[in-house]
Amino acid sequence: MELKYVGKTKDVYELEDGNYLLQFKDDVTGVDGVFDPGANTVGLTIDGVGQAGLKLTKHFFEVLKEKGIPTHYIDADIEKATMTVKPAEVFGNGLEVICRYRAVGSFLRRYGLYAEEGQPLDGFVEVTLKDDEREDPPISEDALDMLGILSKEEYGVLKQLTREIGLIVKEELAKKDIDLYDIKFEFGRAGKDKQIVLIDEISGGNMRAYKDGQYIEPLELEKLFF
Amino acid sequence: MELKYVGKTKDVYELEDGNYLLQFKDDVTGVDGVFDPGANTVGLTIDGVGQAGLKLTKHFFEVLKEKGIPTHYIDADIEKATMTVKPAEVFGNGLEVICRYRAVGSFLRRYGLYAEEGQPLDGFVEVTLKDDEREDPPISEDALDMLGILSKEEYGVLKQLTREIGLIVKEELAKKDIDLYDIKFEFGRAGKDKQIVLIDEISGGNMRAYKDGQYIEPLELEKLFF
Repeated sequence: MELKYVGKTKDVYELEDGNYLLQFKDDVTGVDGVFDPGANTVGLTIDGVGQAGLKLTKHFFEVLKEKGIPTHYIDADIEKATMTVKPAEVFGNGLEVICRYRAVGSFLRRYGLYAEEGQPLDGFVEVTLKDDEREDPPISEDALDMLGILSKEEYGVLKQLTREIGLIVKEELAKKDIDLYDIKFEFGRAGKDKQIVLIDEISGGNMRAYKDGQYIEPLELEKLFF
Repeated sequence: MELKYVGKTKDVYELEDGNYLLQFKDDVTGVDGVFDPGANTVGLTIDGVGQAGLKLTKHFFEVLKEKGIPTHYIDADIEKATMTVKPAEVFGNGLEVICRYRAVGSFLRRYGLYAEEGQPLDGFVEVTLKDDEREDPPISEDALDMLGILSKEEYGVLKQLTREIGLIVKEELAKKDIDLYDIKFEFGRAGKDKQIVLIDEISGGNMRAYKDGQYIEPLELEKLFF
């Protein structure tokens, strides 16, 4: 297998059968040693965080499969912290799709004039560009279409999938009395028909989850959940 | 008449008949002495810029009136640099609506990964919050609706009006071989039926206009145009 890409929190290898292998690492995004799922830099390294993230990812992707939600997931090896996935092309240079249930993080930094910290938001969906240099700017449906990144039809599918997947994750977490504040997804086009599928991971590293009003660290989430 | 509000580029007085009087000032927005229609601070003061802005505003608002576009405009006194307008309430604490024909300014700063400087944009509309402290963040149709600032129906009207007015201004300028790159509008709700109307001004101070590839300063625009 061939190393294709070194990411912040995982490395990507191409397999001989055309599928891909994701190697989960012990790095999480953040700034100055503090975890922030919205950050563009590796903020800290925590032993076991890769494996913990994969355990959650495997669980959620298998729940999504049962529910008929299209994803790139094929299989996972927890021991080796690897996940096998179908090939998918990202939109442009990559988008992040955020689903919000509470006003925190960058939402509050932008819209604090109109929202209180922690205020409920009804599964609000927004898209940001993956662009470290420009600090992942938010982008509208119209701009995505005009710049040839995502058609309006694709945007509709992406938004609908985001709301469905967000709700499934939220309900799974609620079974353990964990409250999902926001979650970040990535999508891509897979197969000949360019179907829009969920890619990347679903773990503590790309969500903000709380229990009894207390924020849960990424590694802690896996322990609390299983 | 009573002073109601001191703005960056104009002061607002309430008249005894319930209408308002806008006193255009010689200040323009910018940073460090350089004009920038998107800036939040007064960047420089130029003698006569208030009167020049009003002359253009009067011209454009009268063209819009002829074409049946709803605005707050009643009358203007160029000598005194004042404009009389109907009362209108802004959306939330105020929005700016930008119509873009070329990729420059904050559009390029945000989406430079996907757009070249000066690239044509087909009357792209975006909305930003007037919020100096948070640097006027862009905001989507969904967020405007969720935060109770603007309903989806109102957003549709706002976007349509923006595109129509932008095109009228662009065509007026084109008659003098002036090329409109982008323009910033403000809207409000007027009258008992809360009709969405154009408010504020249309002048060199809230657009980027070019001639023969050269940027035209706000004061210069009035001279070139008349």
